Amino acid sequence: MSPVLIVGSVALDSLETPYGDAPDTLGGSAVYASLACSLFAPVRLVGVVGDDYPPEGVELLRSRGVDLAGLEVIEGGKTFRWAGRYTGSLGAAETLSTDLNVFADFSPKLPESYRETPFVFLANIQPQLQMQVLEQIAAPRLSMCDTMNLWLNTVPDQVRAMVGRVDIALMNDAEAKQLTGDPHLISAAEKTLQLGAKCSVIKKGEHGALICTEEGCRFVPPFPTTHVRDTTGAGDTFAGGMIGHLAQTGDRSTDNLVRAAAIGTVLASFCVEGLGVEGLAAATPEKMQERYAILEKSSRTPALRSGSLES
Amino acid sequence: MSPVLIVGSVALDSLETPYGDAPDTLGGSAVYASLACSLFAPVRLVGVVGDDYPPEGVELLRSRGVDLAGLEVIEGGKTFRWAGRYTGSLGAAETLSTDLNVFADFSPKLPESYRETPFVFLANIQPQLQMQVLEQIAAPRLSMCDTMNLWLNTVPDQVRAMVGRVDIALMNDAEAKQLTGDPHLISAAEKTLQLGAKCSVIKKGEHGALICTEEGCRFVPPFPTTHVRDTTGAGDTFAGGMIGHLAQTGDRSTDNLVRAAAIGTVLASFCVEGLGVEGLAAATPEKMQERYAILEKSSRTPALRSGSLES
Repeated sequence: MSPVLIVGSVALDSLETPYGDAPDTLGGSAVYASLACSLFAPVRLVGVVGDDYPPEGVELLRSRGVDLAGLEVIEGGKTFRWAGRYTGSLGAAETLSTDLNVFADFSPKLPESYRETPFVFLANIQPQLQMQVLEQIAAPRLSMCDTMNLWLNTVPDQVRAMVGRVDIALMNDAEAKQLTGDPHLISAAEKTLQLGAKCSVIKKGEHGALICTEEGCRFVPPFPTTHVRDTTGAGDTFAGGMIGHLAQTGDRSTDNLVRAAAIGTVLASFCVEGLGVEGLAAATPEKMQERYAILEKSSRTPALRSGSLES
Repeated sequence: MSPVLIVGSVALDSLETPYGDAPDTLGGSAVYASLACSLFAPVRLVGVVGDDYPPEGVELLRSRGVDLAGLEVIEGGKTFRWAGRYTGSLGAAETLSTDLNVFADFSPKLPESYRETPFVFLANIQPQLQMQVLEQIAAPRLSMCDTMNLWLNTVPDQVRAMVGRVDIALMNDAEAKQLTGDPHLISAAEKTLQLGAKCSVIKKGEHGALICTEEGCRFVPPFPTTHVRDTTGAGDTFAGGMIGHLAQTGDRSTDNLVRAAAIGTVLASFCVEGLGVEGLAAATPEKMQERYAILEKSSRTPALRSGSLES
């Protein structure tokens, strides 16, 4: 069970959903990913907040054993704030406001105690900052990066360089198509491997996930929850669960990558059932195991019986 | 191995795709479904054409043993023609022209020899015509219907009535959401069961399929083909393969419904690899078995190992 370094945003979100509102609630990619990952492995967080960051946020992370030596607190600064509104299927939020605040000048510097961390998750931040983090780690055993359409629109070459440097490239289906210029998901996913990543993991929201390696494509269905309330942080939760399981087991076989993606999927199902981090914070290893068994069963394609092709 | 009655359109399609054009090529939902189904069970087709329908069409269907006693030929009439253009991901065609011709006055009448057919697939036609077919069958053992957004927009109550009368309701993800008014796919799929169908099968294109019964949801991934050229008829091929397998095996357990959907998925992968019916016509049970094994493997979520949750 090796420690995991997670870098990303630490934010205060104001969420409007058809199921209720959550003003100034704990959010940020590094927070969702850390909460998920901490169920499986020790987390070392890298991020930045202002001195307005609420003590509850620090306490929640500490209660999960998250190492906050890398959480920079800017005196007199304000924490990154995002406000979004979800409607309909909650597929994509409408951004109401973004105040980067101290996050605008984020330049991740790793404490000395972090430099030997074997597992690294670079959540969605500017790809040059992701690279800057990776260069401060001595010899990571496994690295994973996320990205977003903003960087594909503005600095696509940097995204490509980053994807070429990591073991696992994480993106959603639209991003895979945009990155490769291929409109078909399966071939787009396979082409992302040509950029250098050993594994591509494509997040497909309510359609589950796709895991591509040189051995081919594997699929993980969504967990069939019918209580979706807020999809904020679901992708980061997925990623945190995935890298947590990989760090816990130290096994990077394709089967274990699929298992890790299935664990990420199950944790994301807890995440979307509550507003903000509420659903994820209530997840436990025991509840995760119960849902994993359901997911496993729902994904099983029965073998063809002999004789079923006789005519 | 029981016979299957298939009613739907028999058409001449003019297709424009990024991979080539196919003018006046064999098409229609009943043709795709019959070709797929005939790999597993004897097919009895119900449809209508004009006397311009090309002999190759009749020969192709006869070569698969399809019973054409129910194919009405209107002397002096013209066959239904559709022209469409695909771009990008081939997700949805832009309709260039639709000439219903003899299909406009289609009123399906079953030959006496069809009235005891135990398996029935009602491909996408006006829901009242689907109902009219079902009422002419003595006591079907298993019935399945497809639909489309046109009927959901114009005669939603008829669609609901039809879905309530069949064993298996087939639709795509957008149609399931429209039919139930629920923006979340899983809960929308489950709600379609409340209309009366024993099983809902949701076609999700490049994301695979979802099978819902009172036992819960099961998922079938897409077959990971990277050679998508023309998606015309893929849904009808899926349906034809599915009901063909059910007729061949006579087993309506949930596991066998999932197996049938996986067979439909594999046949659809052959269909999309060629223009018009070309890809599907080249599929054989042996090639299907090979791909089935790949699909089965790609869908498997490995069990959690004991100890993997220790911390």
